Amino acid sequence: MKIAVIHGSSRQNGNAEYLAYHAVPKEKATHIHLQDYHIQQIIDERHEVKGFKNVHDDHKELIDLMLRHEIIVFSTPIYWYSLSGPMKTFIDRWSQIMRDPNYAHFRGELKKKKAYLIAVGGDNPTIKGLPLVQQFNYICQFFGMEFAGYVLGQASKPGDIKNNKRALDEAAVLVTEINL
Amino acid sequence: MKIAVIHGSSRQNGNAEYLAYHAVPKEKATHIHLQDYHIQQIIDERHEVKGFKNVHDDHKELIDLMLRHEIIVFSTPIYWYSLSGPMKTFIDRWSQIMRDPNYAHFRGELKKKKAYLIAVGGDNPTIKGLPLVQQFNYICQFFGMEFAGYVLGQASKPGDIKNNKRALDEAAVLVTEINL
Amino acid sequence: MKIAVIHGSSRQNGNAEYLAYHAVPKEKATHIHLQDYHIQQIIDERHEVKGFKNVHDDHKELIDLMLRHEIIVFSTPIYWYSLSGPMKTFIDRWSQIMRDPNYAHFRGELKKKKAYLIAVGGDNPTIKGLPLVQQFNYICQFFGMEFAGYVLGQASKPGDIKNNKRALDEAAVLVTEINL
Amino acid sequence: MKIAVIHGSSRQNGNAEYLAYHAVPKEKATHIHLQDYHIQQIIDERHEVKGFKNVHDDHKELIDLMLRHEIIVFSTPIYWYSLSGPMKTFIDRWSQIMRDPNYAHFRGELKKKKAYLIAVGGDNPTIKGLPLVQQFNYICQFFGMEFAGYVLGQASKPGDIKNNKRALDEAAVLVTEINL
Repeated sequence: MKIAVIHGSSRQNGNAEYLAYHAVPKEKATHIHLQDYHIQQIIDERHEVKGFKNVHDDHKELIDLMLRHEIIVFSTPIYWYSLSGPMKTFIDRWSQIMRDPNYAHFRGELKKKKAYLIAVGGDNPTIKGLPLVQQFNYICQFFGMEFAGYVLGQASKPGDIKNNKRALDEAAVLVTEINL
Repeated sequence: MKIAVIHGSSRQNGNAEYLAYHAVPKEKATHIHLQDYHIQQIIDERHEVKGFKNVHDDHKELIDLMLRHEIIVFSTPIYWYSLSGPMKTFIDRWSQIMRDPNYAHFRGELKKKKAYLIAVGGDNPTIKGLPLVQQFNYICQFFGMEFAGYVLGQASKPGDIKNNKRALDEAAVLVTEINL
Repeated sequence: MKIAVIHGSSRQNGNAEYLAYHAVPKEKATHIHLQDYHIQQIIDERHEVKGFKNVHDDHKELIDLMLRHEIIVFSTPIYWYSLSGPMKTFIDRWSQIMRDPNYAHFRGELKKKKAYLIAVGGDNPTIKGLPLVQQFNYICQFFGMEFAGYVLGQASKPGDIKNNKRALDEAAVLVTEINL
Repeated sequence: MKIAVIHGSSRQNGNAEYLAYHAVPKEKATHIHLQDYHIQQIIDERHEVKGFKNVHDDHKELIDLMLRHEIIVFSTPIYWYSLSGPMKTFIDRWSQIMRDPNYAHFRGELKKKKAYLIAVGGDNPTIKGLPLVQQFNYICQFFGMEFAGYVLGQASKPGDIKNNKRALDEAAVLVTEINL
């Protein structure tokens, strides 16, 4: 199955990125770094007469790329107990995609996919990251997408994650599952 | 006590805004609409040798304005079971403020404040909005800020919230408390 | 619609009881006090060849009584961030009822009912009671029963709840809804 | 460090028990099976003039036994998205212990301990077991006890857990940590 890993960090070589590569090595998947793309925040125009105005950025390109894979791994540093800014913006814009006549297939396509979440934070993420897991679960539920697993890693300074044996082990278990 | 209401919607006259005005009428507070300001997403440069690069937008002006009040009401539509984009971006950038030598007082100031959360969503918010409440609680806890109350309203189309008697009543209770 | 209020306290005149009577006055509903009944803890015999052994206590009588109402209000003091002992035991035994051939209708009957939760605790219940609300939601979901609302009250010493204006107001809102 | 594993199942050879033995083998710890003891439900007499009446059961013996260990592993099947009945009753009675003059040291002793949670359920426990994890965290927080880790396993029928490779792997990681 084709795997895409969407990296949500706003910096390079972060801890979430490290953990995600540990779960899904470079050559096994399409790795997408949101920081390399330009994605505007959503402006809620769902209820405007003319609907959403066209936005000139890279969002649709990313959506197209994502949809070409069966397994999507969302890897994000935890910003204030939630998704990173780039990841949140990427997902917020799905509300616009869902109203785009060219993407009438979006919801149905997501329903066929398997999602994983990898999230890394500095403040007790195995507890304080649970609301994020629950939200992510509601997102998957909305689309009927299978939420197949998550790993919560603890790290603050660059490289910290290498000492979080438990998260690394859990990520390694994911690899095995995904490759089945 | 001086009250600031921070409105996180990306559109005007939304349901969260209506509910927030119901809790804190126009003339009783400073009402700040994030959509009227330019706030860039955070780029995590906490671990760069030179720290965060200066950002030219309205964020510090908003921080200064917020800090001049004792009670802060965060009013947000629920985007994908979490804060709206503008509200998330506003809060994400606090990580940069905390490392700004001109804002050494930021954390200590927030500690003295009382926070309320008003959140409105279309998909069963009194249940599916609970992870958002829990996250918001962790944010308050981080600063030692009192999380004094929340209201979760249900609404999708413009004006829907006017039919959510329970949320309106709960918002009205907040008014009474805040004015004490 | 016929309303049953199930009181889960292990003592009389507790704060949860007071709040529940505030939401549903004595004469408007059948009030059931679990402390007046004998209910044994479940012994998990789901996987025994002979199934569950018959238990001689008041559980079935309570189930029969509950099923004769359309709206069920579960009122419980919060014990260690969860249901009270009597309420937990009452619900745990539903697993046995579901395997009792005389109660083949149990699941289908619950599906038609509307449930409310009233929970009172001493340690920041509007936040620390949220996992209890989420669990209760999963219970309702399991049966396809509508989870129509909840009130979280704060109180420790007897009578404390009378000072929790917000919870009393929220309970009063429930009354209105239920009587519709 | 001395380890106690408290097994909360109401039957023998259950899936939670299997997972707990996988994390902490028989000979490495004191294994306590609550089903072998008689523990009465708590009657809330905190506010009675004379306080709690003495209860003649095995609870204090179990408390004494628990306090003689540094690491406590709570292993429980998930009953209705929460602790098993025996585990809930065991913990509920802590409220009585805390008011027993012979156990003035109880709270202080728990503060020095490390707690782990192992919970096994049949209905999507890695998501629907999260409120249980959050509650357990609040219990630990109440005592200032370190909540050092948890494993959520999926299983319904006897033996199912042997196929939950991910939970077994996570339990195995716990062993390593505990033995350090």
